[in-house]
Amino acid sequence: MARQERAIRTRQAILIAAAQVFDEVGYEAATISQILQKSGVTKGALYFHYASKEEIAQEVLAQQVDSLPVVPPQELKLQDAVDQALLLAYLLKKDTGDPIVQGGVRLTVDRGSVKDGLDRRAPMRQWTHHTLELFEQAKESGEVLPHVDVARIAELSVGAFTGVQLLSNIMSDREDLVERVADLYMYLLTAIAAPGALARLDFAPERAVRTYGAAMKLRQEQGEKVPELN
Amino acid sequence: MARQERAIRTRQAILIAAAQVFDEVGYEAATISQILQKSGVTKGALYFHYASKEEIAQEVLAQQVDSLPVVPPQELKLQDAVDQALLLAYLLKKDTGDPIVQGGVRLTVDRGSVKDGLDRRAPMRQWTHHTLELFEQAKESGEVLPHVDVARIAELSVGAFTGVQLLSNIMSDREDLVERVADLYMYLLTAIAAPGALARLDFAPERAVRTYGAAMKLRQEQGEKVPELN
Repeated sequence: MARQERAIRTRQAILIAAAQVFDEVGYEAATISQILQKSGVTKGALYFHYASKEEIAQEVLAQQVDSLPVVPPQELKLQDAVDQALLLAYLLKKDTGDPIVQGGVRLTVDRGSVKDGLDRRAPMRQWTHHTLELFEQAKESGEVLPHVDVARIAELSVGAFTGVQLLSNIMSDREDLVERVADLYMYLLTAIAAPGALARLDFAPERAVRTYGAAMKLRQEQGEKVPELN
Repeated sequence: MARQERAIRTRQAILIAAAQVFDEVGYEAATISQILQKSGVTKGALYFHYASKEEIAQEVLAQQVDSLPVVPPQELKLQDAVDQALLLAYLLKKDTGDPIVQGGVRLTVDRGSVKDGLDRRAPMRQWTHHTLELFEQAKESGEVLPHVDVARIAELSVGAFTGVQLLSNIMSDREDLVERVADLYMYLLTAIAAPGALARLDFAPERAVRTYGAAMKLRQEQGEKVPELN
């Protein structure tokens, strides 16, 4: 393995292990020793790549949105928005999840200490921007009612999604997350979609696993790096 | 002051101080010393009323929903639901807030340690139950579209509210919380309200402060104890 490739793998192993530790115990309680143990990386190698726990956490926060695979485009842009949300719900579930997304979400959502220095606004801005792009395209295609302010809808859906996953985590350990997110999007889009588009949208929770499979296939075909799920 | 009244005041002083500390630093970092300092209660008095930090936190969690004043009933039950949500948003704002509600929400929302033993399901069930009652009455009055499952809507609105306050906290220190909650309810009720009811609903954020004033007046008239806000 070339030196550069090895370095990339080591960094990724550190990030995945750290994200798992952050997801399990939270940022404050997490220690470098736990990250070393889970990653199998040596202390020297870890400190070669990252100066501190905070630096690792910032990188997990930064990567959570990029970890989301691109969904295969459907005829309606609003369907892409639904599929994107279902896919994210699927990746947040305990057994099928992506560790970077899960760890990143806990880092974002836990209030933490005022002094911990983690920037929780950046990932929220990234999620909102990502969502807004799809809603803007949907509006341009005439799928959204003319009076709807898509910037507010993007913020609202990111906020609402965040809370729905939090409630699902408390009540069912995220077992029912995909169904709850399907519900959220069904009601939200009922309020904003043009009637012709609404009638053609599919909110079935079963789309989640299908979209995941198709998105991963698309990623492989396009030669992108497939993140290792555990 | 009678002994019983003094005991009630002491317990309340401990709870309010503890809720403020939990809101500031989170459950794990909070100490009994901080609670003593903020409440001005002696260590002996605190341990007379509560055995541990966990017991105090459970009491804060239990009281958060009861701390919410009853809103003055409007003609439409859905308007009561809107007003209730706006009032809760108002009580969560930094400057106008109710410490028990604020501390309780952070205790519920922070994932915390698996071993901390706090029951986060109970307050979520209470919020959902509280919301469901209003939606059920609205459905009985014909204000909700017939096909709508109000139990799912109640869960969805509690989840979505939780996330919207979380996003607002990260992005604006809850400065824009009332406006965001007004948005959330406007879109949610657009999807579920019968057209005749929808046309008569008022989602103006300005209702929040008016509802708060009217709710506190109602509480005083009914001789209920007014919680001391700081």
